Amino acid sequence: MASKEPKQVIVKDSINILSFDDGFRHFKGQKDLMRETLGGKGAGLAEMTASGINVPPGFTITTACCRSYNQAGGVIPDGLYKEVFQSLRSVEKTVGRRFGSTANPLLLSVRSGAQFSMPGMMDTILNLGLNDETVQALAKLTNNERFALDSYRRLIQMFGNVVLGINKEEFEYALKTIRHSANVKVDNELKVEYLRSLIDQFKNIILKNTGSPFPQDVKEQLKTAVEAVFKSWNNPRAIYYRNLNKIDHNLGTAVNIQAMVFGNLNDNSSTGVCFTRNPSTGESQIYGEYLSNAQGEDVVAGTRTPQEITLLAKQMPEAYKQLLSTIANLEKHYADMQDVEFTIENNILYILQTRTGKRTVAAALKIAVDLVKEKMVSKEEALLRIEPMQLNQLLLPSFSLVVKEKAKAEGQLLAIGLNASPGAAQGKIIFDPSYAESLANQGEKIILVRIETCPDDIHGIVAAQGIVTSRGGMTSHAAVVARGMGKPCVAGCDALQIDLDAKQMKVDGRVLKESDIISIDGTTGEIFQGMIDTVTPKMSTEFNTLLKWADESRRLRVRANADTPEDAKISRQYGAEGIGLCRTEHMFMNQDRLPVMQTMIMADSKVERQKALAKLLPMQKHDFTEIFKVMQGLPVTIRLLDPPLHEFLPKLEELMTDPEISKKQSLLNKVKELKEANPMMGLRGCRLGLLYPEINEMQVRAIFEAAISVRKEGIKVLPEIMIPLISDVQELIVTRKHLEATARTVMDEYGQKIEYSFGTMIEIPRACLTANEIAQYADFFSFGTNDLTQMTYGFSRDDAEGKFLTRYLEGLEVNGEKVKIIANNPFEVLDRNGVGKLIKLAIEYGVQSNPSLKLGICGEHGGEPSSIEFFEQVGLTYISCSPFRLPIARLAAAQARIKNELNGDSRIYDR
Amino acid sequence: MASKEPKQVIVKDSINILSFDDGFRHFKGQKDLMRETLGGKGAGLAEMTASGINVPPGFTITTACCRSYNQAGGVIPDGLYKEVFQSLRSVEKTVGRRFGSTANPLLLSVRSGAQFSMPGMMDTILNLGLNDETVQALAKLTNNERFALDSYRRLIQMFGNVVLGINKEEFEYALKTIRHSANVKVDNELKVEYLRSLIDQFKNIILKNTGSPFPQDVKEQLKTAVEAVFKSWNNPRAIYYRNLNKIDHNLGTAVNIQAMVFGNLNDNSSTGVCFTRNPSTGESQIYGEYLSNAQGEDVVAGTRTPQEITLLAKQMPEAYKQLLSTIANLEKHYADMQDVEFTIENNILYILQTRTGKRTVAAALKIAVDLVKEKMVSKEEALLRIEPMQLNQLLLPSFSLVVKEKAKAEGQLLAIGLNASPGAAQGKIIFDPSYAESLANQGEKIILVRIETCPDDIHGIVAAQGIVTSRGGMTSHAAVVARGMGKPCVAGCDALQIDLDAKQMKVDGRVLKESDIISIDGTTGEIFQGMIDTVTPKMSTEFNTLLKWADESRRLRVRANADTPEDAKISRQYGAEGIGLCRTEHMFMNQDRLPVMQTMIMADSKVERQKALAKLLPMQKHDFTEIFKVMQGLPVTIRLLDPPLHEFLPKLEELMTDPEISKKQSLLNKVKELKEANPMMGLRGCRLGLLYPEINEMQVRAIFEAAISVRKEGIKVLPEIMIPLISDVQELIVTRKHLEATARTVMDEYGQKIEYSFGTMIEIPRACLTANEIAQYADFFSFGTNDLTQMTYGFSRDDAEGKFLTRYLEGLEVNGEKVKIIANNPFEVLDRNGVGKLIKLAIEYGVQSNPSLKLGICGEHGGEPSSIEFFEQVGLTYISCSPFRLPIARLAAAQARIKNELNGDSRIYDR
Repeated sequence: MASKEPKQVIVKDSINILSFDDGFRHFKGQKDLMRETLGGKGAGLAEMTASGINVPPGFTITTACCRSYNQAGGVIPDGLYKEVFQSLRSVEKTVGRRFGSTANPLLLSVRSGAQFSMPGMMDTILNLGLNDETVQALAKLTNNERFALDSYRRLIQMFGNVVLGINKEEFEYALKTIRHSANVKVDNELKVEYLRSLIDQFKNIILKNTGSPFPQDVKEQLKTAVEAVFKSWNNPRAIYYRNLNKIDHNLGTAVNIQAMVFGNLNDNSSTGVCFTRNPSTGESQIYGEYLSNAQGEDVVAGTRTPQEITLLAKQMPEAYKQLLSTIANLEKHYADMQDVEFTIENNILYILQTRTGKRTVAAALKIAVDLVKEKMVSKEEALLRIEPMQLNQLLLPSFSLVVKEKAKAEGQLLAIGLNASPGAAQGKIIFDPSYAESLANQGEKIILVRIETCPDDIHGIVAAQGIVTSRGGMTSHAAVVARGMGKPCVAGCDALQIDLDAKQMKVDGRVLKESDIISIDGTTGEIFQGMIDTVTPKMSTEFNTLLKWADESRRLRVRANADTPEDAKISRQYGAEGIGLCRTEHMFMNQDRLPVMQTMIMADSKVERQKALAKLLPMQKHDFTEIFKVMQGLPVTIRLLDPPLHEFLPKLEELMTDPEISKKQSLLNKVKELKEANPMMGLRGCRLGLLYPEINEMQVRAIFEAAISVRKEGIKVLPEIMIPLISDVQELIVTRKHLEATARTVMDEYGQKIEYSFGTMIEIPRACLTANEIAQYADFFSFGTNDLTQMTYGFSRDDAEGKFLTRYLEGLEVNGEKVKIIANNPFEVLDRNGVGKLIKLAIEYGVQSNPSLKLGICGEHGGEPSSIEFFEQVGLTYISCSPFRLPIARLAAAQARIKNELNGDSRIYDR
Repeated sequence: MASKEPKQVIVKDSINILSFDDGFRHFKGQKDLMRETLGGKGAGLAEMTASGINVPPGFTITTACCRSYNQAGGVIPDGLYKEVFQSLRSVEKTVGRRFGSTANPLLLSVRSGAQFSMPGMMDTILNLGLNDETVQALAKLTNNERFALDSYRRLIQMFGNVVLGINKEEFEYALKTIRHSANVKVDNELKVEYLRSLIDQFKNIILKNTGSPFPQDVKEQLKTAVEAVFKSWNNPRAIYYRNLNKIDHNLGTAVNIQAMVFGNLNDNSSTGVCFTRNPSTGESQIYGEYLSNAQGEDVVAGTRTPQEITLLAKQMPEAYKQLLSTIANLEKHYADMQDVEFTIENNILYILQTRTGKRTVAAALKIAVDLVKEKMVSKEEALLRIEPMQLNQLLLPSFSLVVKEKAKAEGQLLAIGLNASPGAAQGKIIFDPSYAESLANQGEKIILVRIETCPDDIHGIVAAQGIVTSRGGMTSHAAVVARGMGKPCVAGCDALQIDLDAKQMKVDGRVLKESDIISIDGTTGEIFQGMIDTVTPKMSTEFNTLLKWADESRRLRVRANADTPEDAKISRQYGAEGIGLCRTEHMFMNQDRLPVMQTMIMADSKVERQKALAKLLPMQKHDFTEIFKVMQGLPVTIRLLDPPLHEFLPKLEELMTDPEISKKQSLLNKVKELKEANPMMGLRGCRLGLLYPEINEMQVRAIFEAAISVRKEGIKVLPEIMIPLISDVQELIVTRKHLEATARTVMDEYGQKIEYSFGTMIEIPRACLTANEIAQYADFFSFGTNDLTQMTYGFSRDDAEGKFLTRYLEGLEVNGEKVKIIANNPFEVLDRNGVGKLIKLAIEYGVQSNPSLKLGICGEHGGEPSSIEFFEQVGLTYISCSPFRLPIARLAAAQARIKNELNGDSRIYDR
């Protein structure tokens, strides 16, 4: 496997050790360099110390030392230990205890800490400095022999495992045996005599395994621990983790050596965790819990119930005041809500760690907006703080995680399919679309369950709360239609054995009958038996404030993919500045229109076809009229008929098993005639319009008649006609010439002039490669990144996602290792390396030959943040996405603009 | 429609007229400039005159004059006519006759002649200079009043139509009427009195149409004729022709004015046409015919039977000697066989035209080789003279054109399908593959006729002379297999209604039953009823000589696409320097192997799959062993399994109507499970090998076991393992790592080391775009231009060719005009503009990151000359094509190299 090229390491190698006191000053605020040299943890401790926060004193051995150690083949750099003990002296001085003292012993923690966080690389070693003598001193000092002995046995255990590499199990076994003898359930309950015996056993384990006793020399303990941290850099777990995350193997880790403080020293001591704001709601008030006379691990262990943090005010009013002011400073310093670990030792507050606190989306929004109001961060910074995809949680009904976990625990989870359209829904299983419709009209909540859906089922889909199919991928009919409607859908769930005739489905031995209740989560693909309550979305004031700021910050215009007046209305509510993709074919899939469409397809002559088209004309005109009215002069990009005609007819396999097939011979013949080996690359898109120009003609007539009638009402209209699937400029030239003639004819008939533009989808690799030719005949390009991704990769999305793409993303077993073939699903996150290269070429070529070319994108990537970042970088005019993705797109567009400007505004073109 | 950007016109505008005498000298041999200024015809006349050939004198008005005329909006340049009459004086002097003389009149021809040949743009005007008086003089001079009058009426007719724009029909009607009155059938038989009457009638037509009489002033005649030629440049036919051929509308035409000579002056006069060599056989001897006392049009009219040219030696020995030496000079001058028109007037030989003579392929080969021997042309020049595709005629059995025309006249042509695999064949119609096999074993000639074929039919295909299918495109199973075997195939002939149960087919009302004879032409797609004899191919000495020269000249190595030892043998006969594509899947399609393959596919576990694979291993090893033996150390590129697994199983629709389906439920389930929406872009190629690594493993084991066993016999082996359908470098990394481990295992088992290389097909756009990454893990790239074209265009070949590509190539009706959407079928001629751009990118990126990368191509374009020219330009290492295309490829590769060097060797890379 190839590792990435090593990054240039720019750390100065001259410094071996920096105290927490000196670290921040030394680097003069160069935080990146500080982090490279001291590691993440060391840098944080230094920064806090520099900010006047009371941190237990300590020092950091730089990453450079680890590098020297490794380069020298495992030799400690000359004089390093000497420096360590020198540095230790000033820690002893500050704390007023001495390392190894038998009267007032200083205990230390030793922790690794690399430049990039590497969880699980190496454990911490605590309580270093205890031996048979100092443990007695600690017992006296704390007046708690049990605590002292327990700390000692923990040290021996950690040291034995982490430093000396002895199997954990041996210690655990001894512990288990002694718990049994003592007849207690948890370690905390072990009495002093048992702990003494345990310490002896642990010492024996070490002697047996290493041939040497546990070191009583505390200096020896410290030296061995430091070397163990260095060595841990190249343990298998660490190497695997770095390979996985493409982290340079040459960086090395720092080592942090810090004085231990004791929250369990006496009743004036305590330990706890707190947030500077409420992580659930975002409210600006301290939130957290603590335990008095306890150590950190007791809070986690749950043997005692921690107390609500505000109670500390009564118990230790001074320390609490100190805590409040300290965390306020930390929040100010880091300009974000903090998650703080603290210990109070004898009324003195120590901060052990601070980090940006995790929070719910709702809280994230409120905190971001509040921080701007409190002038702690700029609007731009606030915008960058929100993960756009998380907004989904606020926009769609969802199941709360807790409720879902409960349902799983109770065995309600039936199966997991493809998460084809997000959101949660529940209702009665109905297998028949018409029955679904009639029940829905009576107010029932329905989940339509089908093997797969087809245009005939559309009324059932409209009526249902959600859709489930057992076959078909992320672009199957059900998935596409559901996403377009913002309706939850779980597709291709092949664990369901659906028997339409028997009106039941089997899954994993269970039988579900018609009208049984299920709940589906289209965001995760989960299907549950029974009713699970959903949480309804709310758009908070902060939500709207943030989106307003996003709109002010972004350069990219944001449009919606909307096919119906209803979609158009929702789009405007969510802030669409136009329609970027109005798919006209969905208009033909309504139950009352499909038969007319089918008549058109079955027609044997142009004249017959035109007759059927004449019936479709007023329907299509009506749709356009309504959409134009909703959009009030905002641009509406209308794509002419795109899918292959056989999509409007029943499937061949269904017909072949149709008992009434003898009556449908001509239909069967037509379906056979239209059958294609690879319909994705067959007779569709502009190819259809070139062979049957009368279809396009009807559509263009409908657009212009609608536009004229709407303008008569005093409403502005701005139609943009879009030709799909261009692979050669001649296709566009001929189509445009023909359709502009039709447009002129209609305008002449009504004596009206309508402003319009004429463009093309760029969704075939060759269109990108010959964009210089195509741009001469197009007012705009709209990148169809779905199809472009399919053809650039040679992945049929319907086949790939079910058959191999999931495996590629999960990783394949190679020589016992799981190797990911592709990092992201290219249908979700735009592939910059391949598809992106084509898009850049197309923009470069296109703008060269048509400097006023408008550039948009209407594939599903238009609503995905990382892709939007790319679209900002290449300078598109607008992005278009499904209505429910608009808030995400608006925020992501703002973030992209801000990031791009931070990077010196590297946009290629600015359309 | 967009016209191409006008070429920069570099003609000097200062010269208005050049005589044939002066033309060549004036341009000092700058033939291109001469052609631009004098037009093609004028330049030819000037060049012949300069070479001392006796050409009737004359002069050319330059194209610049026509341009001035057009730019000025139809005004004759100042003083042009004055110059015309000045130039005419020297013609009169040379000929000794005077224009308009009533004693010894000079007659003239006036002809257009542009830089590029534009047939049908404008007719010639002959006999200019005749009027009521000079016609009498001509009658006296020729002692032939009928001839003189006939010439006069022709002048009036041509002048009326061509110069004055009067409808042809009016003259034709008068002529018809008079023929009727005179009771004769052809014009030649009209007596003098009728001709006089006709002349009067023609004059009246002109008077009636134009209001003016036919000009008796010969100068007026000439001036009007010249202006008419200028005007003809912008007549609709000419504009249409130029649009079609992308000729610049600004070039203008020249006008040639030349003295007429008379082969019908007396018995010492004659006229004829001759070739300098035999155009059928290429033998170096004069070939042609003549008529004495006749004019050129009489030879064409066929009223008198012309005489064999050598008879002229007796009749006019002097003139004949003159003719022989003149045409010898012409051939020498043009360094090619000439087709010469001549007239002898009173024992004096005039050459009216010479041009390169058309010839058969056999003649072309002989002439090219002879010309080199005669030191008239270089080997390179000779190589450039042969159209590579024509070699096909010499390599495949074919129907002679004459025989086919006869068959068509007799209604034997049944239908025309896709010309899926070239060559001619005849035999009995057999619908069942097994029956076909048993009949063939009895020595019968069979044409296998199927709706479509599948792997189950392979034994029938092997047994048949040719294959016909009613469904499927150029990449359907039948087409691919037939091309691979060099067997004629007509595919997708949907006019055939095949009824397999009734064992008959209907076509256009006719019913053909089993065992009826048909003949098929796979080169044209024609299917004939009955037996049509074929011409068997012969490889002449010249054929081999020329190919030897080609091999010396070319840089590109030439390999074959060969899947079997038989193919490999043929390949070597035709000069293959290796195998560029050995498709391993065809090895599984034999009747005895397919069941094992199907067991492998039906297997539910890896273990079961491995069991079936273990049975396939020795079969595959055997194939490789035989192929390696044939190739004797030449490189053999073996592509691992590529097609989707369902191609090895029966089709779903067939299964659904199978009466025994109840017994085949598990097969049906598997077929349903493997069914794909777009199999071309589904689970195939390297994706298969990644999901089922045991398949690849077996194949690689077979390759290495075979290589080791062959090398033990002292034969060199050079296997090149090729992974298909890479879209991301990770696919290659993982596959290569896994398979190289397998290779090492086998080599270790046998204690042998085999030299091999490991590469990939580049057939997906993304592979081109990320070639820099891929090349780091590939020793070679082999461009799979078939799939690359499919995905770059978004054309599924199977669907496109039947459904819309043919229409794109024929042209679509747009506003009453037929417009071609695509000039060439991109599956035949490589699309340089799109696919070519991707190939160039891939080469650039690939060589950048792996300078020793070998580059080949194994799509069908590897055997197509224009594509080969491109492959030479981009510097591929080798091309690979079907065995029967090898001679074409060798010649085309030589031509490409020669042309490229003539153009300053513009190759991008030289692998």
